[in-house]
Amino acid sequence: MPQYETLRWDVDEVGVLILTLSRPDHLNAFSVTMARELEGAFRRVRTDDAVRAVVVTGEGRAFCAGMDLSADGNVFGLDETAAPTAEDIRERLLEQPFQDGVRDTGGKVTLAIHECDKPVIAAINGAAVGIGATMTLAMDIRLASEAARIGFVFERLGIVPEAASSFFLPRLVGLQKAFQLVYSADIIDAQTSLDAGLVLSVHSPDDLLPAAHAMARSFIVNRSSAALAMARRLLYAGVGSSHPIDAHRRDSLAMWHASVGDGKEGVAAFLDKRDPVFTQTVADIPDFG
Amino acid sequence: MPQYETLRWDVDEVGVLILTLSRPDHLNAFSVTMARELEGAFRRVRTDDAVRAVVVTGEGRAFCAGMDLSADGNVFGLDETAAPTAEDIRERLLEQPFQDGVRDTGGKVTLAIHECDKPVIAAINGAAVGIGATMTLAMDIRLASEAARIGFVFERLGIVPEAASSFFLPRLVGLQKAFQLVYSADIIDAQTSLDAGLVLSVHSPDDLLPAAHAMARSFIVNRSSAALAMARRLLYAGVGSSHPIDAHRRDSLAMWHASVGDGKEGVAAFLDKRDPVFTQTVADIPDFG
Amino acid sequence: MPQYETLRWDVDEVGVLILTLSRPDHLNAFSVTMARELEGAFRRVRTDDAVRAVVVTGEGRAFCAGMDLSADGNVFGLDETAAPTAEDIRERLLEQPFQDGVRDTGGKVTLAIHECDKPVIAAINGAAVGIGATMTLAMDIRLASEAARIGFVFERLGIVPEAASSFFLPRLVGLQKAFQLVYSADIIDAQTSLDAGLVLSVHSPDDLLPAAHAMARSFIVNRSSAALAMARRLLYAGVGSSHPIDAHRRDSLAMWHASVGDGKEGVAAFLDKRDPVFTQTVADIPDFG
Repeated sequence: MPQYETLRWDVDEVGVLILTLSRPDHLNAFSVTMARELEGAFRRVRTDDAVRAVVVTGEGRAFCAGMDLSADGNVFGLDETAAPTAEDIRERLLEQPFQDGVRDTGGKVTLAIHECDKPVIAAINGAAVGIGATMTLAMDIRLASEAARIGFVFERLGIVPEAASSFFLPRLVGLQKAFQLVYSADIIDAQTSLDAGLVLSVHSPDDLLPAAHAMARSFIVNRSSAALAMARRLLYAGVGSSHPIDAHRRDSLAMWHASVGDGKEGVAAFLDKRDPVFTQTVADIPDFG
Repeated sequence: MPQYETLRWDVDEVGVLILTLSRPDHLNAFSVTMARELEGAFRRVRTDDAVRAVVVTGEGRAFCAGMDLSADGNVFGLDETAAPTAEDIRERLLEQPFQDGVRDTGGKVTLAIHECDKPVIAAINGAAVGIGATMTLAMDIRLASEAARIGFVFERLGIVPEAASSFFLPRLVGLQKAFQLVYSADIIDAQTSLDAGLVLSVHSPDDLLPAAHAMARSFIVNRSSAALAMARRLLYAGVGSSHPIDAHRRDSLAMWHASVGDGKEGVAAFLDKRDPVFTQTVADIPDFG
Repeated sequence: MPQYETLRWDVDEVGVLILTLSRPDHLNAFSVTMARELEGAFRRVRTDDAVRAVVVTGEGRAFCAGMDLSADGNVFGLDETAAPTAEDIRERLLEQPFQDGVRDTGGKVTLAIHECDKPVIAAINGAAVGIGATMTLAMDIRLASEAARIGFVFERLGIVPEAASSFFLPRLVGLQKAFQLVYSADIIDAQTSLDAGLVLSVHSPDDLLPAAHAMARSFIVNRSSAALAMARRLLYAGVGSSHPIDAHRRDSLAMWHASVGDGKEGVAAFLDKRDPVFTQTVADIPDFG
């Protein structure tokens, strides 16, 4: 079992990983260490067959209170010596966009979440502010406790919403609500988040984690890991595609892959009125790129 | 009037085609024959000036209960001898993506719907499951009977949502609801479909088809077929575009085309307080590609 | 202060520009002069540091009753001598897409709004029909009076929704509602517009402009003009991107730019519990292209 300084990693018997942000004395503020550990944890999720779905939550009162501004040194995680001007940094980002020191730290985490090939559910138990809010946007579904408070507060600090949030947010709540959330920089409560379409449902504090856990189980029991991963890739690729024909190409490849494996078994099991025995893994699935 | 084995084709005096899925003894299950006939029917819609809008519904209790798993042979409609490995099939799809035997069958139908250049309304009268659900996503508007039951059940069978649904679904209900519908693979009722934004309105079973028919008529009476087709192409292209400037280029071409034809007549009729006499047809409209 | 024939330009002490469509005797109908003046006004907004946010409203009963069909000559603003056939005009648009005489007039205005780099709020006080409706789609947020009436009436005239509306509309209300609004060509009231997600909130006629003004102030007081402009560019680019990695590249550039300027000040002010003093301007921000 992997050991982390800022996270807890607990996998149950069916493959639900509860990944807990665990700096409760700092409201789970996002430190350089947490960023590195979260990125590593989601890279591990991708390749670890024992993990079939992920629930992310926070220990104690908060989900994640944002960037740890109390830390010594460079709170942005950027190397200010890397380039003296915006033009220099722009060139460097174009040439070597994935070098540390010039990359947005939150985005390193959300791209790892995006690529993890398993269903991911955020269980937002309390304050989710700044990167604490934007990191949840790369998760597939968000459930909120009545105690949740969500804020895209970046504009109050003279910075911008990051972590690739501009890709996800308007596709979750539409352009108009996205502008309201970002320009106002307000911290909104659970009901307002539900009305905006930002979270899928609201639960009492005690019911939140059980609800997220039950949902994750329902997604994976008697399901094919390969078919889940392909569906996840198809939806994220589809929402970014310019024409349905691109979706059709990917569908054809995915259905072909399924038809010679778990799909053949799934149809046979359905006709036999028995539970399927799926064997294809995430490692097997074809590249849709 | 075209004759089909699995469809009924009825055009009224103003140009509304009621296209009825007609295998009532099989809950209108999607067979290889129905796939071929649906694709052909929508190719015909595109070029048949007598058809100005389409309502798709199902005969009997169901809309379409999904892929016909009772059929002999290959339920996926794929030619398993076409390529021995996923890598082979991937190469073949990239080289010759539109060959039969390697293409997702549902996608052949939804691409024909997508390209039909007429408004299309789904009147979902009962169960719409699997391809019965995804085929409606390529239709412009969905109305549901209180008896409708809609399910993206693919993950239960070890397969994936197909028929280019990954392009349409998140643009109808947002990414979060799309993931919930796909991962849960639940069959949802009419009210839940309405709340999710999947269907536009819910009707009593007796009122569904009249409501869909009335809506289709309202879209075409005293309207220009060319302007309707151009608006349809603009919206589908616009939602897939990366920048509004691309929409502006297409708008300019469409407005130019209208301004020398039906648009000139439409403005004149409005100023004269008389009904317009539109003459441009779908065959006339320019290629926006 | 710029002088216009068809607009009023009023900037308050914090930088909110109230831009008023001002042809009240013509229900603020969109004339060739108004088009030219609106495009010029939003080009000015972009470079005028005294303007930090914009509220657009209409004088008198209407917001904008659409294209001024009463004008002499070519109501489409197109030069019919530019090309004799659709094929000619298509070639010309591909070669020289931004020449006057072949460009959609509404799109010239909405592209200027899109590029203005400041938050823009529509305060829809009455009828917003045709270009009066589509011009608001390129604004970031729409508030409506109870007296608002919004109509995408193009199909009644044999023309198409223009002004790059096909980019914006489905990203505001989803594809299904977009088709309903465009195909029906109905004029809808304020509550229906709210239910569709087209406007963010509905206000009494007397409260509309104060509400829009207060919202605009809340977006800019103690905020960085550079961070606001970058957030606006990020969201519009993000919703058009095919993959979150493109958002990540832009985020990294924006966060870098902030981290050496207003972001550093914003964090320092937060830790010092004082108001920030932001100095970066829109002119400073890097090109995300």
